[in-house]
Amino acid sequence: MVLRKMEEYLNSLRENDKHKEVYYRGKKIRSFLEHPTLNIAAKHTAKLFEFPDRGYYDETMNEEISKYFKVPRNSDDLLNRHTLIYNNTVFCKGVFNISQAIGSDALFSLMIVSKIVDRKLNTNYYEKVQNYYKYVAKNDLALAVAQTDVKGDRSKRPSEQDDPYLYLKVSEVKKDGIVVNGAKAHTTQSAVAEELIVLPTRAMKEGEELYSVAFSIPTNTKGLKFIIRPIEELEGNTSSIISKEDYEFETLTIFENVFVPWERVFLFKEYNFSGYLANLFATFHRFTAISYRSALTDLYLGTTSLLAKANGIENEKHVRDDILNIILYKEIMRMSAIVSALKNNYQENIAIPNPIYTNIGKLYSNENFIKVVASLIDVAGGIIATLPSEEDLNNDELKAYMEKFLKGKYSGKERIKLLKLAKELASSSFTGYLLTLMLHAEGSMEASKIGLIREYNLKDVETFVENILK
Amino acid sequence: MVLRKMEEYLNSLRENDKHKEVYYRGKKIRSFLEHPTLNIAAKHTAKLFEFPDRGYYDETMNEEISKYFKVPRNSDDLLNRHTLIYNNTVFCKGVFNISQAIGSDALFSLMIVSKIVDRKLNTNYYEKVQNYYKYVAKNDLALAVAQTDVKGDRSKRPSEQDDPYLYLKVSEVKKDGIVVNGAKAHTTQSAVAEELIVLPTRAMKEGEELYSVAFSIPTNTKGLKFIIRPIEELEGNTSSIISKEDYEFETLTIFENVFVPWERVFLFKEYNFSGYLANLFATFHRFTAISYRSALTDLYLGTTSLLAKANGIENEKHVRDDILNIILYKEIMRMSAIVSALKNNYQENIAIPNPIYTNIGKLYSNENFIKVVASLIDVAGGIIATLPSEEDLNNDELKAYMEKFLKGKYSGKERIKLLKLAKELASSSFTGYLLTLMLHAEGSMEASKIGLIREYNLKDVETFVENILK
Amino acid sequence: MVLRKMEEYLNSLRENDKHKEVYYRGKKIRSFLEHPTLNIAAKHTAKLFEFPDRGYYDETMNEEISKYFKVPRNSDDLLNRHTLIYNNTVFCKGVFNISQAIGSDALFSLMIVSKIVDRKLNTNYYEKVQNYYKYVAKNDLALAVAQTDVKGDRSKRPSEQDDPYLYLKVSEVKKDGIVVNGAKAHTTQSAVAEELIVLPTRAMKEGEELYSVAFSIPTNTKGLKFIIRPIEELEGNTSSIISKEDYEFETLTIFENVFVPWERVFLFKEYNFSGYLANLFATFHRFTAISYRSALTDLYLGTTSLLAKANGIENEKHVRDDILNIILYKEIMRMSAIVSALKNNYQENIAIPNPIYTNIGKLYSNENFIKVVASLIDVAGGIIATLPSEEDLNNDELKAYMEKFLKGKYSGKERIKLLKLAKELASSSFTGYLLTLMLHAEGSMEASKIGLIREYNLKDVETFVENILK
Amino acid sequence: MVLRKMEEYLNSLRENDKHKEVYYRGKKIRSFLEHPTLNIAAKHTAKLFEFPDRGYYDETMNEEISKYFKVPRNSDDLLNRHTLIYNNTVFCKGVFNISQAIGSDALFSLMIVSKIVDRKLNTNYYEKVQNYYKYVAKNDLALAVAQTDVKGDRSKRPSEQDDPYLYLKVSEVKKDGIVVNGAKAHTTQSAVAEELIVLPTRAMKEGEELYSVAFSIPTNTKGLKFIIRPIEELEGNTSSIISKEDYEFETLTIFENVFVPWERVFLFKEYNFSGYLANLFATFHRFTAISYRSALTDLYLGTTSLLAKANGIENEKHVRDDILNIILYKEIMRMSAIVSALKNNYQENIAIPNPIYTNIGKLYSNENFIKVVASLIDVAGGIIATLPSEEDLNNDELKAYMEKFLKGKYSGKERIKLLKLAKELASSSFTGYLLTLMLHAEGSMEASKIGLIREYNLKDVETFVENILK
Repeated sequence: MVLRKMEEYLNSLRENDKHKEVYYRGKKIRSFLEHPTLNIAAKHTAKLFEFPDRGYYDETMNEEISKYFKVPRNSDDLLNRHTLIYNNTVFCKGVFNISQAIGSDALFSLMIVSKIVDRKLNTNYYEKVQNYYKYVAKNDLALAVAQTDVKGDRSKRPSEQDDPYLYLKVSEVKKDGIVVNGAKAHTTQSAVAEELIVLPTRAMKEGEELYSVAFSIPTNTKGLKFIIRPIEELEGNTSSIISKEDYEFETLTIFENVFVPWERVFLFKEYNFSGYLANLFATFHRFTAISYRSALTDLYLGTTSLLAKANGIENEKHVRDDILNIILYKEIMRMSAIVSALKNNYQENIAIPNPIYTNIGKLYSNENFIKVVASLIDVAGGIIATLPSEEDLNNDELKAYMEKFLKGKYSGKERIKLLKLAKELASSSFTGYLLTLMLHAEGSMEASKIGLIREYNLKDVETFVENILK
Repeated sequence: MVLRKMEEYLNSLRENDKHKEVYYRGKKIRSFLEHPTLNIAAKHTAKLFEFPDRGYYDETMNEEISKYFKVPRNSDDLLNRHTLIYNNTVFCKGVFNISQAIGSDALFSLMIVSKIVDRKLNTNYYEKVQNYYKYVAKNDLALAVAQTDVKGDRSKRPSEQDDPYLYLKVSEVKKDGIVVNGAKAHTTQSAVAEELIVLPTRAMKEGEELYSVAFSIPTNTKGLKFIIRPIEELEGNTSSIISKEDYEFETLTIFENVFVPWERVFLFKEYNFSGYLANLFATFHRFTAISYRSALTDLYLGTTSLLAKANGIENEKHVRDDILNIILYKEIMRMSAIVSALKNNYQENIAIPNPIYTNIGKLYSNENFIKVVASLIDVAGGIIATLPSEEDLNNDELKAYMEKFLKGKYSGKERIKLLKLAKELASSSFTGYLLTLMLHAEGSMEASKIGLIREYNLKDVETFVENILK
Repeated sequence: MVLRKMEEYLNSLRENDKHKEVYYRGKKIRSFLEHPTLNIAAKHTAKLFEFPDRGYYDETMNEEISKYFKVPRNSDDLLNRHTLIYNNTVFCKGVFNISQAIGSDALFSLMIVSKIVDRKLNTNYYEKVQNYYKYVAKNDLALAVAQTDVKGDRSKRPSEQDDPYLYLKVSEVKKDGIVVNGAKAHTTQSAVAEELIVLPTRAMKEGEELYSVAFSIPTNTKGLKFIIRPIEELEGNTSSIISKEDYEFETLTIFENVFVPWERVFLFKEYNFSGYLANLFATFHRFTAISYRSALTDLYLGTTSLLAKANGIENEKHVRDDILNIILYKEIMRMSAIVSALKNNYQENIAIPNPIYTNIGKLYSNENFIKVVASLIDVAGGIIATLPSEEDLNNDELKAYMEKFLKGKYSGKERIKLLKLAKELASSSFTGYLLTLMLHAEGSMEASKIGLIREYNLKDVETFVENILK
Repeated sequence: MVLRKMEEYLNSLRENDKHKEVYYRGKKIRSFLEHPTLNIAAKHTAKLFEFPDRGYYDETMNEEISKYFKVPRNSDDLLNRHTLIYNNTVFCKGVFNISQAIGSDALFSLMIVSKIVDRKLNTNYYEKVQNYYKYVAKNDLALAVAQTDVKGDRSKRPSEQDDPYLYLKVSEVKKDGIVVNGAKAHTTQSAVAEELIVLPTRAMKEGEELYSVAFSIPTNTKGLKFIIRPIEELEGNTSSIISKEDYEFETLTIFENVFVPWERVFLFKEYNFSGYLANLFATFHRFTAISYRSALTDLYLGTTSLLAKANGIENEKHVRDDILNIILYKEIMRMSAIVSALKNNYQENIAIPNPIYTNIGKLYSNENFIKVVASLIDVAGGIIATLPSEEDLNNDELKAYMEKFLKGKYSGKERIKLLKLAKELASSSFTGYLLTLMLHAEGSMEASKIGLIREYNLKDVETFVENILK
């Protein structure tokens, strides 16, 4: 039984903190758990280890390991994975808990690609991936994945940039491993993870061998630097409810002469497989995305429905349409997750979520999250932008005024709680942050469109029409 | 020459502050100018007095007064008013400067309604409005307008609420004036104005006489309490650029036994005119809204266009479509303002913006602002959500990494500045606040729809069709 | 083995025609098969009997019967039903083949409701439904369903109308049965079916007993009159391709003193169950709708994709977006069908498609079909509106000009065929007809919205939020 | 006084018909007026000469000429032109009357471009254009304009096509003129016009001199062939109301060794000006488009509003939203026309409609016309797709049933008339035809987007932002 308890993870984090280079608001951080804001991000990851019934007995390893690491072999495994991610997100108040989800997304795609590369090029990556997988699963580790390079001038390829390190690049090949330099953006919960998996961000071509690299390293590896975004949803909103207990951070992750031993290198120079690995990870991770996003939507749906009642407008037709709008958003994502699981691609003994349905769900989410926010705003009213502060609400004299005058069909006290939550969801820095995430996390809309059209079989419908025209 | 200088306004504010009851984050504020955050809101209003070429010679008053107080007599006056509001907003970096705009919106609607009421009911409101108007114009005052009641249970009328004061109500009629109780929401820049005009929020009917009231009072009147919303766009975002110099606040404005002398009472018990006054003010103020919103859009348009270049994606078709989307948003609003001015309704010697076109512009803005934000996010990339903090950027060591790695087609330094602005506009608490404002300020979408269908002449097109069918 | 051959159906139709009262373009029709236009509608239904592999062995009946009549007992049965309808539609060139689909939709809902009514009110409807079902299945009949009443003034209930028969009503109760009067709109393929099932259109209440009626009759019953809509998609477009071989018609179906024997009466006076029956049928039939609509979409998708190539614009980004738009339309409908089947409601031993997902699919179809058409138009170009006629294309001299000048990347000949099809789909009377169908067939958007919000469980997400706020 | 009467035009047409080569449905047409269908198109153009108050006194010509030929010198002229086109469209029951509108659009753009070319290249086109203009105006002629080439493979330029004549090309240069070959698509009302103006469809470059040509010819010029599209909106819908009296046709217009004398050649080989001429004409003609489209919308708005009442659903909120949707469509187009006129570009002594606002109006129309149709369908109900035919309505016996059962809040007789019109507008071949027109006529959406982004001044807003960031 290898499943860790929350406390074990926290102890590991305390230990790990000593050797890590982490910056927050211009200062080097010594301990996550002692930091007034960042401790919440750490505790969020810690909740992973408290999630009920999170293990399963794995026959190959002969151990009970985390369900996140269960390699999907069929539709049911993928449906269970969808439910796991959904439920774990609900468990964390609608906030995704990324660490083992993204880590396993990366591991599954590495398993598939390494097998193919080995077969074609006679390498031995699969064994290394498999060893790493076992190490991770048996130690029940928290993982982060760094994929998106900082990219520089988007009109140029990696090798054409003014600076060679705007995409992560191998700068030196040593006997016992490689040295890399560069930076990755948006690495979620990186510095509270124990391990970091690094994947290429895109397809590469001849001449870009040194950019075609995948590997893993401990997060306290020398030369790794994490610069954490400001947690404004909490530090900037004293009345926040969700972010006070659950949020995730991203870092700009800098690799300065970072050494990776060979046994941790999973792709090196095989530029023909860089794009496939990137896409495969994207598919697994977008499946994860539509799963957690449906749970996030529950926050919007529940708050909108309750505020409609609190305001006394639950019978207005435009309010009904707002609620339906959010229902459609949630359920179209769930439908796409379910069908993605059912119609999975099976390759190298692993069930891959169907990229068509996964991308449809993600694209729908990209394009329509703004309407979910707008629906909540429409129902909540302008007051969520002009709501007095938490400090006012904690001042006894002012509180009395507020409870008197912010009464709706519900009491002032109850309605104010709902308004605070609605503000957090729809009229705060959390909102702004989410708007961007919902558009760009797990790939931009263009990325999903490219993926969709590439995978879609147009030949069948073309033949259908050609036969009619014969 | 009555036009005040900035310093005169600031002195008046200092004086005024002594007697005002203002709260911010649970504490009573003694001086706006000495407050680290709130001084910016005061200075924002002060910029009104620095706006170049802001006066005109008024023949009736035989003085040079603020152009905001020029009563519109024809299309040109309204077109000039549109341009004045647009330019003044551009002057304040895209942030509306409300004080004399909303004040004059209220005064013009009071002028029209008071004349009609006087004629029908033999009252003498017009003279009182006129006197007040001259007082305000000659003293070049900063004004605020409180209209939206807190409203309680939206399914009930004012008189049906559990608490009689969920709509502002006359609680006592005295020999020399009236006493009012209640609260108004969303009073913009209230506590930095010198005068507050109070208008009814909706149509009233028999039995609601005591809710049918309009008046004005100095902002330091006894019993008035202002609770300011938290300025999170500044206090919660250390890298803010716009909000550091320009923002506006709203207050929950509480009236506790506030006395209003008769000469300042502009409507009292004439419930039949309450709705007309509310709508007329809404029309003037929505015309103001589409004027300032076009200027606000310039921020989004310019930032999107520059970031497209900075990222090296200015030739991508989806980027072109994002830019076009913002152009359409801006220009449809401007078109509606222009046509609203051209096809104005002329009544009681005042040119009223055409409510059809004003509402079309506002409705388009309500429904499409989210797409403007999404367009900027699409072009800017996910980095605006995960951008390291201002404190990191001020740390010399980290700064060097950031400028190296956040380079695009533009240098890291230049691109970071654009990203900071893009973050403020599209991924911050300012964004969340704006989303709500753009949906609810100057009336909800439902309010505009109701206004539009009420004013639109469907008879003509029905007759057109009936003639065809004859 | 009861499965009929096409010829058996056609013979039955010939016989049936003798006693039926059918009108087309102002004239009484004696024979479908001899009518130059209407014979196609008959042959369309006849194709039902040619669809390959259409039977299954039913254990209860100890016979091979049509798969349409297989009562769904679980998810797989519903998934198979979805596939059956999709494939049969593809078999008919994208045109739905309604007869046994709608008939079984009605039968399944009658089975459920009759069982419930029997249990609650001690009636014996279920046995009658069951007998009728066996009769229909064993004789492999073609069925039509009449549900939508003509409704008169939509602001009034059935019993409040000026004319009592604007909803179908029992006008006389006899010893051996009932007599009904009224009219039903939109009865698809009614007059080529052998049997007509009549269902109530909505919930009824006390005092509306005589409107609360369900029954079945042969289509050649005395007093039944069918007025067929003009088949303009064929008669008005000489270059039509699809409609020349497959289309369906609707009738205004008039009931003039139509007698129904008791054994064919399935609901009578039980007004409390009228709404449930109407909704249940709607659910089954909407599931059918999203199944055939995905197949119809194949026509649009294939034509758009081929025309993009024929025009030489297949690499334009807006063309890719048009194609993606149609893909999303199709796949969201398919996803909703699949999930609807998986998450079915099981009641009275029958698997009912989940009304939430069924309505989501239908609503998405209602709202977005216009965009499918617009996407095809965008890719095809204006030429589909101004294309010379079939007669020009059959004139040798003109044909040569046309093939020369309508050349694209494909030859003139090939491109013209595609343009003719694109015209039929997107710029013809078929288009107009379809636009209305896609909005109103199987219920309006309002109907789906009402269904969705009624069935959706908001309590769970409300509780989720309430727990967070505790 | 040169203004012709209807009869004079019709006589001219009779004369003209003798020498023209016109095909309809595979047959050569000898006389428009004697053709059962095509006479309506001729009479439609004839209505141009009956439009009340259609002349103005032109000082230069010293004659009263058609207002269409009034060269716009300022905003008022353009506003009057907008009103002229709008009113003339209303006069023709919502159907555009193109002949002198498009003709003058072409003449104005030729006036401007010829002057510029003359100045730069020392040619003498302007005089020829001016002479032609006077000839046309003084004879009050009906004009057509052929611009869109058939284009072949859209991925290739004119000179790269397999067939050199897929863009109209000069095939021979003679002493007295040029000979052209090729074909133009979509020439509206070509064969009922007396003159045809031919313009280039796009920008040309070096090597494409022979494609860079503009000229005019009488419609009965030898070698010109007109193939008219089938008039399905009339021939395919016996219950049509509008099309029975007013419609316009388009032709595929073939040029087979057509000779043009030098005095009628307005551009030849000046490839640098081909694009400017094409765009300038597009701008004038799109201004015309948004003017006639607002009048067309009146049909939809009036019919929707009346049918809402006829159905008894005028108080439903979704019906209100449908009506508002159509109002927005109409008024945004009108706003764009008005602002386009006000903010015109003045060049070569001619006021050109502002291309930004013109394109915004047109683009809005392109994207939203489908929603106008959908709104009408939503309100009208499914009955417009399944409405019995005109022949049924003319059969006395059936008529009685129909009037009884199609009763709404209005009588059956009145409602049926509205339903017939609604069918024509939203569920007929006219609908399909219009959908394509509203997307492609006067240029595709891509064309408008390209025009918009090219003309828009982004520099100002970029500078605004750059100044903020300084």
